[in-house]
Amino acid sequence: MAAPIIVLVRPQLGENIGKAARAMLNFGLTEMRIVNPRDGWPNPSAGPAAAGADIVLDQAKVYETTAEAIADCEHVYATTVRKRGVTKPVVGPDEAARLMHGESGRHAILFGREASGLSTEDVTLARRILTVPINPEFGSLNLAQAVILCAYEWSRIAREAGAGELVQPTDEDDALPPAPQDELDGLIGHLEGMLEPKGYFLPESRSEATRRTLRGVLTKPGWNHLEVRTLRGVLSSLQRGDRES
Amino acid sequence: MAAPIIVLVRPQLGENIGKAARAMLNFGLTEMRIVNPRDGWPNPSAGPAAAGADIVLDQAKVYETTAEAIADCEHVYATTVRKRGVTKPVVGPDEAARLMHGESGRHAILFGREASGLSTEDVTLARRILTVPINPEFGSLNLAQAVILCAYEWSRIAREAGAGELVQPTDEDDALPPAPQDELDGLIGHLEGMLEPKGYFLPESRSEATRRTLRGVLTKPGWNHLEVRTLRGVLSSLQRGDRES
Repeated sequence: MAAPIIVLVRPQLGENIGKAARAMLNFGLTEMRIVNPRDGWPNPSAGPAAAGADIVLDQAKVYETTAEAIADCEHVYATTVRKRGVTKPVVGPDEAARLMHGESGRHAILFGREASGLSTEDVTLARRILTVPINPEFGSLNLAQAVILCAYEWSRIAREAGAGELVQPTDEDDALPPAPQDELDGLIGHLEGMLEPKGYFLPESRSEATRRTLRGVLTKPGWNHLEVRTLRGVLSSLQRGDRES
Repeated sequence: MAAPIIVLVRPQLGENIGKAARAMLNFGLTEMRIVNPRDGWPNPSAGPAAAGADIVLDQAKVYETTAEAIADCEHVYATTVRKRGVTKPVVGPDEAARLMHGESGRHAILFGREASGLSTEDVTLARRILTVPINPEFGSLNLAQAVILCAYEWSRIAREAGAGELVQPTDEDDALPPAPQDELDGLIGHLEGMLEPKGYFLPESRSEATRRTLRGVLTKPGWNHLEVRTLRGVLSSLQRGDRES
């Protein structure tokens, strides 16, 4: 269940290496490998673009060839946009993430250079092809975006799988339970008491239906007791006479 | 099942608007709205950064306020990184995408300015908070990355749905969609107008917080337009003098 290793193959710009590091660390990925970076390594442009993800850059390892970079990896994915004449299984980021969580061993994802992507040789090294399904009429993912989508999916599936390392927002976050029925009844009774003298429930023949409608509207939100208290305050305020202004 | 509208609130750099457009179009999103962009609109830096996603920029609409930008939207999501003292449901991009596919009506996702995110007032306008679950020790998503993750999830769930799996029946299945934002604003404005002369919003120093609390309570249920009409009727009734009994 270790996070995948992100392998940047012959990247051109240090800035993009930094952005990839930033994208990774957002979702808990820390292991980056760099194959034959065009401008050498370390690259002074990488740090500023990493926006604080220095740990990823500091620990990045550099290799001469793609084969060396993935020598210790059991599962290798090659990211490509276009279909290739290679007969390998093609998966999306979501399915790749599921496979990573289901298969033991070390996982690596290869990303090609900005201008041209992975070479056919690099793709051949991989067991599977990872393709982000994009708009067929407009495919324009940059390197860091491709990385962030893969990192995001890995962490999303990790959370699904119950590895509770990352923050998981839920519907219930901070939310209080709905107020007990008697508080809600108190609110509805209060409002009905105010509406009664206004003739709101007339004609008598429609009175029951009108009450049901009103109750339906007020029951829908499932207000908690603080919210009910706020609304009771509103009603009490409306019952007061106007202030001298 | 229309794609969500991406609303950029007070964005600073044209370049980031362009990048957001590019991120959107990769996953088939085309409708962008911009609230009060710092450097005006159109912005010459946006086009080059859009990398060909000109159709998104050409069709982008500009608004003075967030409220105007979402006036016709039934479902509004506010993206935030941090926890807020606001009691609204918090969902991730995946759950948001599922909700968008399950609920009819127009969906909008608010993104705040690069430096500071959404203001508390903007968050208050939304029914739900959308938080990308990121590494608690390193959260550093930029605007275009936040947009691309939401766009990606929307298209991923759309494909799931197209594959025949999705459109899970919800309890709101046959229900009417929430009333558009301007109807809700009308209700809130009506009530505020009644409460004002009662001194409900005093002391002045607490006035904004009190308005936010009230709005939060009334935004929670997602009332449909019939329900809003019922409540407008209630308020009008309360404004009348008592009947002779």
